[in-house]
Amino acid sequence: LVEFSTVTPDASRPTAEPDHSMRVRVYYEDTDAGGIVYHANWLRWFERARTDWLRSLGFEHSRMLSTSGIGLVVRDLCIDYRRPASLDEELIVDVSLVDARRASWLLDQRAWRPGDAGPLVTARLRIAAVHLATGKPTGIPKDIATRALASRGASQPRTLHA
Amino acid sequence: LVEFSTVTPDASRPTAEPDHSMRVRVYYEDTDAGGIVYHANWLRWFERARTDWLRSLGFEHSRMLSTSGIGLVVRDLCIDYRRPASLDEELIVDVSLVDARRASWLLDQRAWRPGDAGPLVTARLRIAAVHLATGKPTGIPKDIATRALASRGASQPRTLHA
Amino acid sequence: LVEFSTVTPDASRPTAEPDHSMRVRVYYEDTDAGGIVYHANWLRWFERARTDWLRSLGFEHSRMLSTSGIGLVVRDLCIDYRRPASLDEELIVDVSLVDARRASWLLDQRAWRPGDAGPLVTARLRIAAVHLATGKPTGIPKDIATRALASRGASQPRTLHA
Amino acid sequence: LVEFSTVTPDASRPTAEPDHSMRVRVYYEDTDAGGIVYHANWLRWFERARTDWLRSLGFEHSRMLSTSGIGLVVRDLCIDYRRPASLDEELIVDVSLVDARRASWLLDQRAWRPGDAGPLVTARLRIAAVHLATGKPTGIPKDIATRALASRGASQPRTLHA
Repeated sequence: LVEFSTVTPDASRPTAEPDHSMRVRVYYEDTDAGGIVYHANWLRWFERARTDWLRSLGFEHSRMLSTSGIGLVVRDLCIDYRRPASLDEELIVDVSLVDARRASWLLDQRAWRPGDAGPLVTARLRIAAVHLATGKPTGIPKDIATRALASRGASQPRTLHA
Repeated sequence: LVEFSTVTPDASRPTAEPDHSMRVRVYYEDTDAGGIVYHANWLRWFERARTDWLRSLGFEHSRMLSTSGIGLVVRDLCIDYRRPASLDEELIVDVSLVDARRASWLLDQRAWRPGDAGPLVTARLRIAAVHLATGKPTGIPKDIATRALASRGASQPRTLHA
Repeated sequence: LVEFSTVTPDASRPTAEPDHSMRVRVYYEDTDAGGIVYHANWLRWFERARTDWLRSLGFEHSRMLSTSGIGLVVRDLCIDYRRPASLDEELIVDVSLVDARRASWLLDQRAWRPGDAGPLVTARLRIAAVHLATGKPTGIPKDIATRALASRGASQPRTLHA
Repeated sequence: LVEFSTVTPDASRPTAEPDHSMRVRVYYEDTDAGGIVYHANWLRWFERARTDWLRSLGFEHSRMLSTSGIGLVVRDLCIDYRRPASLDEELIVDVSLVDARRASWLLDQRAWRPGDAGPLVTARLRIAAVHLATGKPTGIPKDIATRALASRGASQPRTLHA
């Protein structure tokens, strides 16, 4: 049983600088007949931000897939839909590493509209590395963790990767 | 702050009969380059099952949208990805109403492979009704709740809505 | 250069019995902020119908992928969006084999609302088999073609695979 | 009957400067179990490029939707899948206005990998404006056409809108 209670992001806490931010635009493909972003599509954007963050650390999914058959998968995820987003809006999606263990990483993500007081959507999730052919878990390669933690040490200014 | 800790489904508890079940098939569109179902796509299936369940109770999204501009939205969601699913597999997706309040309903959902000992993916989520033009919350219409609760009373056999 | 002119379906011709038909339902995931089905999503439904048709002939994508690394891909496609579909509607998607060559198959597909005089969306497309690791074309396995053509010979009644 | 034969892009003709280009990245969400981009997803990228092009001309879907209930829809489309794209690749998607009539615009689009001799995927399509509540066609607003044609006159250097 995943103890979600221990991993729920505390939205009232002032947010530190995220480890990575990227811009996304809301296109027709992202919306539904309710006129807002379809709830599952926020997960696509969160994945794009994680992938771009890992790429900025020198890691690419495709290389790990082709060389060792290992993929990073989401183990569990809690997401809080606070306010909707609409067609044509430009949003910012953040990634913050909360905890990096050998078997899994805990991440906070949020999406917000520039200028707003609070985020539209927040999530906390765990990713892990698995051998995709067998589903067997394996450790997240150490060099990625090392680089991720090293990059956190730097008091980097917020830079947007568009 | 959503208290996810109070709503996490207890996976070890024997599962009662769900209020609704539907079959889904894994098509190419659902998978990703890792060879398994893309994590966000389980949410699409869970929504299909909720929609079919509501339809079986006499409720249609489109009618509520066109007559009163009200839509049902997901407020928050926790999902636990236990095991992956692959291309061509046929799965069953369940919906169970846990708690029906005026402002929001709490639901358990799970997806499983027929014959397996446990589910592949489980989720707990809250849905609410909002005026889509303004985003303002409104109560979930009472007649839907009445019918949902009435249907739960019946010790219905598991019937699959394909 | 693909000569699309030779493959455009003639919509005025009375349609023969399709080789396969399946039902699809329009869910929130399929629609966009215009309130209608997002144009790319008709291709997802057409693919589901092709896959179910092939499965009914004893062919499964996953088996061909895992045993020989071969996949069926779309080579080219023309699609005509005549009328839109909306949330909650139930549609029927047809597949008809027009021409089966060794290297590629030509197919007609159409989606229609039961009771309507004409289809909502029609398409003509070519599929081919490729070694996915290299992208190299290979012939579509003969036994599939044999079974597809044999099944066409039967003057089968329209049966819906839900 | 749409006469696709008259609108098929001639791939052998040297391509003039497109009216707009944007970069897209291949994420897990875009791929399928075959390890390549799922065929319907190229249409999503083509739509993003059209939307960004229109935005650069001062047009936004959301404004036209909310002020007049008019949306731009795809009428018909031919797409030619020449070569696949894979996870993590960065591609460029072009839009070229071929013909702007009052009722519909004819567009060429293509996606290519920087440095490649030819495009991966090409398409020719027609878009039109409709009242979304009724499905009734209406003219594409003249000011958009005027700006689109004016921008074509300029012998603009290729600039990538990321």
